[in-house]
Amino acid sequence: MNSRISINALTQPLVTQLLKDAEKLHLIVEKPHCTIIDAGINAIGGIQAGLRIAEICLGGLGHVNLSNSGQGTWSWQIQVNTSNPVLACLGSQYAGWSLSHEKFYALGSGAGRILAQKEPLFNELGLTDNATNTTLVLEVDKIPPQEIIDKIVQDCHLPSAEALTLILTPTRSLAGCVQIVARVLEVAMHKVHTLHFPLERVIDGMGSAPLPPPAKDFVTAMGRTNDAILFGGQVQLFVTGDDSDAKQLAEQLPSSASRDYGRPFAEIFKDYKYDFFQIDPLLFSPAKVTITALESGRSFHAGQIDLQGLAKSFGE
Amino acid sequence: MNSRISINALTQPLVTQLLKDAEKLHLIVEKPHCTIIDAGINAIGGIQAGLRIAEICLGGLGHVNLSNSGQGTWSWQIQVNTSNPVLACLGSQYAGWSLSHEKFYALGSGAGRILAQKEPLFNELGLTDNATNTTLVLEVDKIPPQEIIDKIVQDCHLPSAEALTLILTPTRSLAGCVQIVARVLEVAMHKVHTLHFPLERVIDGMGSAPLPPPAKDFVTAMGRTNDAILFGGQVQLFVTGDDSDAKQLAEQLPSSASRDYGRPFAEIFKDYKYDFFQIDPLLFSPAKVTITALESGRSFHAGQIDLQGLAKSFGE
Amino acid sequence: MNSRISINALTQPLVTQLLKDAEKLHLIVEKPHCTIIDAGINAIGGIQAGLRIAEICLGGLGHVNLSNSGQGTWSWQIQVNTSNPVLACLGSQYAGWSLSHEKFYALGSGAGRILAQKEPLFNELGLTDNATNTTLVLEVDKIPPQEIIDKIVQDCHLPSAEALTLILTPTRSLAGCVQIVARVLEVAMHKVHTLHFPLERVIDGMGSAPLPPPAKDFVTAMGRTNDAILFGGQVQLFVTGDDSDAKQLAEQLPSSASRDYGRPFAEIFKDYKYDFFQIDPLLFSPAKVTITALESGRSFHAGQIDLQGLAKSFGE
Repeated sequence: MNSRISINALTQPLVTQLLKDAEKLHLIVEKPHCTIIDAGINAIGGIQAGLRIAEICLGGLGHVNLSNSGQGTWSWQIQVNTSNPVLACLGSQYAGWSLSHEKFYALGSGAGRILAQKEPLFNELGLTDNATNTTLVLEVDKIPPQEIIDKIVQDCHLPSAEALTLILTPTRSLAGCVQIVARVLEVAMHKVHTLHFPLERVIDGMGSAPLPPPAKDFVTAMGRTNDAILFGGQVQLFVTGDDSDAKQLAEQLPSSASRDYGRPFAEIFKDYKYDFFQIDPLLFSPAKVTITALESGRSFHAGQIDLQGLAKSFGE
Repeated sequence: MNSRISINALTQPLVTQLLKDAEKLHLIVEKPHCTIIDAGINAIGGIQAGLRIAEICLGGLGHVNLSNSGQGTWSWQIQVNTSNPVLACLGSQYAGWSLSHEKFYALGSGAGRILAQKEPLFNELGLTDNATNTTLVLEVDKIPPQEIIDKIVQDCHLPSAEALTLILTPTRSLAGCVQIVARVLEVAMHKVHTLHFPLERVIDGMGSAPLPPPAKDFVTAMGRTNDAILFGGQVQLFVTGDDSDAKQLAEQLPSSASRDYGRPFAEIFKDYKYDFFQIDPLLFSPAKVTITALESGRSFHAGQIDLQGLAKSFGE
Repeated sequence: MNSRISINALTQPLVTQLLKDAEKLHLIVEKPHCTIIDAGINAIGGIQAGLRIAEICLGGLGHVNLSNSGQGTWSWQIQVNTSNPVLACLGSQYAGWSLSHEKFYALGSGAGRILAQKEPLFNELGLTDNATNTTLVLEVDKIPPQEIIDKIVQDCHLPSAEALTLILTPTRSLAGCVQIVARVLEVAMHKVHTLHFPLERVIDGMGSAPLPPPAKDFVTAMGRTNDAILFGGQVQLFVTGDDSDAKQLAEQLPSSASRDYGRPFAEIFKDYKYDFFQIDPLLFSPAKVTITALESGRSFHAGQIDLQGLAKSFGE
């Protein structure tokens, strides 16, 4: 993998600009020790904040925008493209760093994960970074306790808490909805990895998914943001290697290839008694995929958009 | 409302950049006393000029772009999003400042309105600004007389005419069409206000409308730009408060809720003997709306796109 | 024509930024004498590189982006808009400078063409430039020989090879596909010229075309990129002058007006025994066009999207 890029260095100017525009993006910035950017707990946040945070999650290597496809009831979609799908989506955006202290639990996303090197993935990617300041995005609805902040500072080998920025986006918030749905390509990349398709063979990719309405509670919100991708997500990947591998990837990649596909996510979650780890991990993927094999020029399509599934999940 | 933002300060860099790019945007800049940017009278102007002017109208708080939805005959649409719909659309973009001298008549749009404080709205919004230079956008097809310029300088408490920039966009011009249609969200916000829905409860919003072809005369051009919104405009608003309020807003908001809905705007205008004030003020609104109640997470949809209405208005 | 704009000066900052972002765009930069940016020969390149190179081709006067229309199998499209269609598309983007040495053959696109003044078009446009450095984009799959570089330096009157940047985008590469398909508006403008419609009467324009999958060989790749435009391209032009001229232009402009329309381009090419000059030059044009006559406000539509044609060309 391309390790000469410092994802932390690419991310930093985006965070600086986010702080500068905090007022108009309805963010609340607090600096108890580290810098905390509240994008939806006490702050209002919003769609533009979500788009910016999504690009921060992608480590400055992805482009995210809002567009109206004009189709169906839920026509506003979030679009993402990156020519560095492995680095941007898995190296940075994936919420892979598990952080817990007493009742607080969060999954860290963003460039800070590369400094912490807590996940086997980084060894596999050969991805390191020497940055002395960093950013982590947490999908939480409360300010993390001091112990979590201390742990992040220590694990990221930062000189002090002042070198850390935490961006908080509750699942229920508008900014949260945007930045989660902007994971449509990351979700595909993660499943590509789970399916043992060699990551270095994914050259480029883009995805889109409808913007779900924020929900009244965490479970419904988690359901809708997942369903936006499972029922409405579209991804195209450009890969090297044999057609047979590309064809197999296309067949296995869409959400409909999972045994748990077909019902709103919140319903599935409830049936598994809210035990996340009972859900088929292969469920988490876009509805519709195209895998283009660059050497032969053949494309393999699988899955489809399910507007009724979206309607059930997003409600009236 | 959030009054710490200076919309004039946010607008200024966009105006500076517009002046810098005047040549490639086909604008004519004249500085008799104030700076006059002609975007379609003697100048050619164009679509890119219109997009830039639309973002200036939105006070630097909105994002406007052109995209092809690929649907129907009039598939190119103008899209707008702002996380500050009240400040951007009503505080700045709304053409609310009535300016007249002898036969000259114009409605001022943009950040200058906040300095002039001529409209009761500013009192209601608690919106003030201490800027010492400003910009006003006028939808006119002639250069304003000196008396109008003097009046604006005085009412905005500017030190001299040099502190004023006027941007002129005739209704018939390409830049005019773009910047008017980019009002699709503003038109919705204005009707929200007319319907007495509390403005502070509108948190975020986006809208789109097809780009109409410029017309041969003022009345047809006004008709088409209105019809782009009335028959083809789509808006989604995110609001706080009770579901019943959101539901009622959705039902009342679309253009089809007006008694005057159904015919091309130019025809209605003619039937009312060109007396603008005879037209139902509730007609001015997008064709299709979604109101999402943030607390319950429920969304309320009303209205629909009318492609036949568009075709009648836009002609062949 | 507007000759006060230096397209070379507008292009330079885009090239500087491209060089700065080379690593994340997967470009290989070599400086044997001139600067060579490999966007798909030994380099991986990608979609984002292609979008940037397309804007460089357009001389800094056009906007190019990727968007998902959500329609059909090939829903990701490249969109382009410029308020300077003649200067941007014909003055810069058109690949009109024929360069050959022994077995090497390329058509130069970009701002360098204006310095070289090799094409009668520049005389017609009255377009000159005094820049002392320049950029040329070549759709080739090998590094040009030294003789070609020397020729370009000399013909562009550059002080030395160090003042020249060559950007290389093979037809088969992702960046190549993007930058070729971003020619949808240029192809229309070139046919406008061939049809003897006065160029100065085209005021503004936009176009879109689906992103084709890269192909396994040059002929298939050339076929697909052409078919993206011939079967899937959409263009709208805003013109001055009589309705009858606009109507005639609309009727003649779409690809379906050509005697060679109807089959995948690679098949046509093969049937003409790979003799490019046997193909009807009027074939090269978008599938669907709208010509809007600015004076009357009437629009003339012709042609249509052919999804089956696209499917045949793009394969599975």
